[in-house]
Amino acid sequence: MNQAILIVQCQDQKGIVAAVSQFLYTYEGNILEVDQHIDDEIGRFFMRAAWELDSFALTKEEIAARFQTEVAQQFGMEFSLHFNFPKPRMALFVSKLSHCLFDILGRYHAGQLEVDIPLVISNHLDLKSVVEAFGIPFFHVPVTKDSKDISEETQLELLTAHQVDFVVLARYMQILSPRFIQQFPNRIINIHHSFLPAFVGARPYHAAYERGVKLIGATAHYVTEELDAGPIIEQEVARVRHHNTVAELVQIGQDVEKVALSKAIHYHVNRKILAFRNKTVIFY
Amino acid sequence: MNQAILIVQCQDQKGIVAAVSQFLYTYEGNILEVDQHIDDEIGRFFMRAAWELDSFALTKEEIAARFQTEVAQQFGMEFSLHFNFPKPRMALFVSKLSHCLFDILGRYHAGQLEVDIPLVISNHLDLKSVVEAFGIPFFHVPVTKDSKDISEETQLELLTAHQVDFVVLARYMQILSPRFIQQFPNRIINIHHSFLPAFVGARPYHAAYERGVKLIGATAHYVTEELDAGPIIEQEVARVRHHNTVAELVQIGQDVEKVALSKAIHYHVNRKILAFRNKTVIFY
Amino acid sequence: MNQAILIVQCQDQKGIVAAVSQFLYTYEGNILEVDQHIDDEIGRFFMRAAWELDSFALTKEEIAARFQTEVAQQFGMEFSLHFNFPKPRMALFVSKLSHCLFDILGRYHAGQLEVDIPLVISNHLDLKSVVEAFGIPFFHVPVTKDSKDISEETQLELLTAHQVDFVVLARYMQILSPRFIQQFPNRIINIHHSFLPAFVGARPYHAAYERGVKLIGATAHYVTEELDAGPIIEQEVARVRHHNTVAELVQIGQDVEKVALSKAIHYHVNRKILAFRNKTVIFY
Amino acid sequence: MNQAILIVQCQDQKGIVAAVSQFLYTYEGNILEVDQHIDDEIGRFFMRAAWELDSFALTKEEIAARFQTEVAQQFGMEFSLHFNFPKPRMALFVSKLSHCLFDILGRYHAGQLEVDIPLVISNHLDLKSVVEAFGIPFFHVPVTKDSKDISEETQLELLTAHQVDFVVLARYMQILSPRFIQQFPNRIINIHHSFLPAFVGARPYHAAYERGVKLIGATAHYVTEELDAGPIIEQEVARVRHHNTVAELVQIGQDVEKVALSKAIHYHVNRKILAFRNKTVIFY
Repeated sequence: MNQAILIVQCQDQKGIVAAVSQFLYTYEGNILEVDQHIDDEIGRFFMRAAWELDSFALTKEEIAARFQTEVAQQFGMEFSLHFNFPKPRMALFVSKLSHCLFDILGRYHAGQLEVDIPLVISNHLDLKSVVEAFGIPFFHVPVTKDSKDISEETQLELLTAHQVDFVVLARYMQILSPRFIQQFPNRIINIHHSFLPAFVGARPYHAAYERGVKLIGATAHYVTEELDAGPIIEQEVARVRHHNTVAELVQIGQDVEKVALSKAIHYHVNRKILAFRNKTVIFY
Repeated sequence: MNQAILIVQCQDQKGIVAAVSQFLYTYEGNILEVDQHIDDEIGRFFMRAAWELDSFALTKEEIAARFQTEVAQQFGMEFSLHFNFPKPRMALFVSKLSHCLFDILGRYHAGQLEVDIPLVISNHLDLKSVVEAFGIPFFHVPVTKDSKDISEETQLELLTAHQVDFVVLARYMQILSPRFIQQFPNRIINIHHSFLPAFVGARPYHAAYERGVKLIGATAHYVTEELDAGPIIEQEVARVRHHNTVAELVQIGQDVEKVALSKAIHYHVNRKILAFRNKTVIFY
Repeated sequence: MNQAILIVQCQDQKGIVAAVSQFLYTYEGNILEVDQHIDDEIGRFFMRAAWELDSFALTKEEIAARFQTEVAQQFGMEFSLHFNFPKPRMALFVSKLSHCLFDILGRYHAGQLEVDIPLVISNHLDLKSVVEAFGIPFFHVPVTKDSKDISEETQLELLTAHQVDFVVLARYMQILSPRFIQQFPNRIINIHHSFLPAFVGARPYHAAYERGVKLIGATAHYVTEELDAGPIIEQEVARVRHHNTVAELVQIGQDVEKVALSKAIHYHVNRKILAFRNKTVIFY
Repeated sequence: MNQAILIVQCQDQKGIVAAVSQFLYTYEGNILEVDQHIDDEIGRFFMRAAWELDSFALTKEEIAARFQTEVAQQFGMEFSLHFNFPKPRMALFVSKLSHCLFDILGRYHAGQLEVDIPLVISNHLDLKSVVEAFGIPFFHVPVTKDSKDISEETQLELLTAHQVDFVVLARYMQILSPRFIQQFPNRIINIHHSFLPAFVGARPYHAAYERGVKLIGATAHYVTEELDAGPIIEQEVARVRHHNTVAELVQIGQDVEKVALSKAIHYHVNRKILAFRNKTVIFY
């Protein structure tokens, strides 16, 4: 079913829900989902509405302009309009570890991810054959300390050439530059292998082992310029015991990494995430 | 803050959200929460809206009639109107086990349960002193096979006399008659000490032990005439191991019973639960 | 590191741990792990010991006989002796659903499963290309109502020809005959897509949806002649909400299926599971 | 049943399990539980054994000396010997928040905590009546910046006078001095209201809210001189959503605080915890 999805943010005030829903009703929109959230502390209003497009009285192209003049202007809204077609185009960045890649490709293959994956980019060659077995183009862009700028330029060109909408760092072991990140605000999802904000940075499983924690975790978040500090989308944990080695923590942790990352992708693709400042509103 | 809460159910159709939110906006309602759900399979629409009462242009007494003529009639809605004051009056039914009672009274004492507890009814005397230490009247209504009818009559009189809104069976080990249940449709919450529908009936921890399950659970549900088959409100589980005895399962299970039951009470009191047929919509 | 693993069961009595550990010490065994469990209710003793083989004074071939005469006989023990090499040979049975297959092959590819997978058997052709992309032989053995006996014979011949140690039903949608099951006692692992004993049989996600449960689950168990009633190895659950469709329950459930099944395989391969009657002791 | 429990630590070496279990067998000990753990990284051996005391050939008083000369000396063991009687004496320190106190007293009242509680100490008077309703002496020891030394002296005298074995800080909002802590090495259990090492220090729920985490947690740990950095005993988490206020995080968090703390007490009382350096081995 063809759907339109409207995402709205503005200062909280009376009449917003009425105005938005009245707009949709006026043009015969059959509402499928409405969610709203008011952050009392900062007085901010968040809303998401999805409706059937086929029976809607406005064409896909008319909606945004009409909504702007008939509703958004009056309330000082920021809004974005989305459709569930064509599928968003997702690029995967990987390094050597295969578990998140496999997990995503498995869901993709089973038809459970509503995305297209036009390419996978890696700084290593290890996962080339896996990716190509799925019929997805694989690009090897090596990254060295000195080549970082050039490598990122190559990566950005590839993303542009493949009309990529958002990027998933599926255990990509390089830090992206601010310049790169600014091209994809709240459109780069990283999976960090700890329960943030615990164990920021490198080797979190080793740090978790040293600290003797009883649960380990994984955090999917949008990438911002500050390392591991972007808006958190999803977190998962798993229980560990004293006898688990670092290698076992890694394996146990990979299972929660996969779940947290795939949920984050699912929320992102379905426009369930509204980010503001450094936090996320997620309508699931 | 004084709030009004509107709960709506009807056949799904266009314009419902617009009509309800327009109604609230017309009378200057400051919306705090709006949630809606459409069950596609049965074509049914569910909605909950909460708004500030103090700045509303209609009095508490006017709202229902106006909503009926201005909105509900047109859409064939079933609706109910609630306020967060005065607090709902909750009766507790207990037998001998104290863990759920203690848990509820602890939350009550800490000011975390927005209810009044006018009385506790028990078929045993064991928990009398605990209840009275909290300054709550305790009524001992013994139940025997032959006295059941009379006992229930006594119980119902006590509930009426204390103007009870809803009943919580906090490990009350007696089965209520259909006649009793019909007095409180979707207003009796029971905690069953298993992950329903597994282990319906008596001694579920023994049954779980026999079956060798690796997780045990608890289920809070509305009581209906069929035993342990009413609409499920909340479920929780905890991990157990081969070395756990039945007595240990009981202790581990009590922790999840307490959490499931207190969540269910919280949802019920805050009018977050919409029941239809044998299922619940819970807006949390 | 080459390890020997001894699994012991017998009636509980004094001196067992001393006798087993003394036996290992006598022959200079460097113990890596010792776990024991006493089931008080039935008076049964369970033990698992793992030690370094390379520095052991007995050869791989001598151990069982010596243990029999020096220890087992005196205590009336049932015991089995295992080594962590060569790797156990695991056959996968699949039908059309790929998620468990992908998950297992992903772990296998990452070197995290200490098994060899000599073949995959399926009653459908859907997953042939995936399996072969991993370089694993795929055998298509169609099963119809009338052909069941012949099909199972073919399957058993394949298992024998490939020297298979144990079988994993990775969402294999056929019921095996008692005759088949008896060939692999406690060596066939099935993943059932519900939290057993709830929702035995076909279409458990539909049943869970109908019942309106708030958690769905998956159960890995050894296959016995009674459907979905064998010894439970591992169970996992995930939270669902009123708005989740059956299709969404299926997807959410697949994530817990994968985790429960992979843990079960891990425990089985590392000889962590001791089954007795219809329950498992698992030393993790 | 009267039990003896032996806790052993030493450098890993061959023959330890054999020696300990042979010792117990020699004196006709009926072993109930044996657990051992080898930390490969640091080459350290940990063991716990529990056996029936009544049928044991040594008296309670003889065991330690015999074990020292017959086993411990030879292996350079540190060991401690415990009995499940008389019950350990636990002091509770509280401030104003009642949830952990209620939870512990509820379990105590139900006979589920194998401890005696000779006194509760608080720097406030708020919880006096609750404590005394349970028949437990309540001591009010106010703490100000200047009085801290004197207050701690008073507290220590109370603990000595009441022959306290270990202390539980059930949301006691004061930092203990190193001098105090040294009197009770690995015998003071604190519940910290975050998933350590995230959100060390004051107001962790506020910090969690600010960071926008999707799970909040609680950590029970032994108190050491470094704040919130002692050996972790147990951790629990609960899911939160974007709409949860700080006050709601506090309530949700209290449920996991209670579970983590009560498990930690249970492990401690049953001598299931072996601490070494800054980590715990827990045989559950």
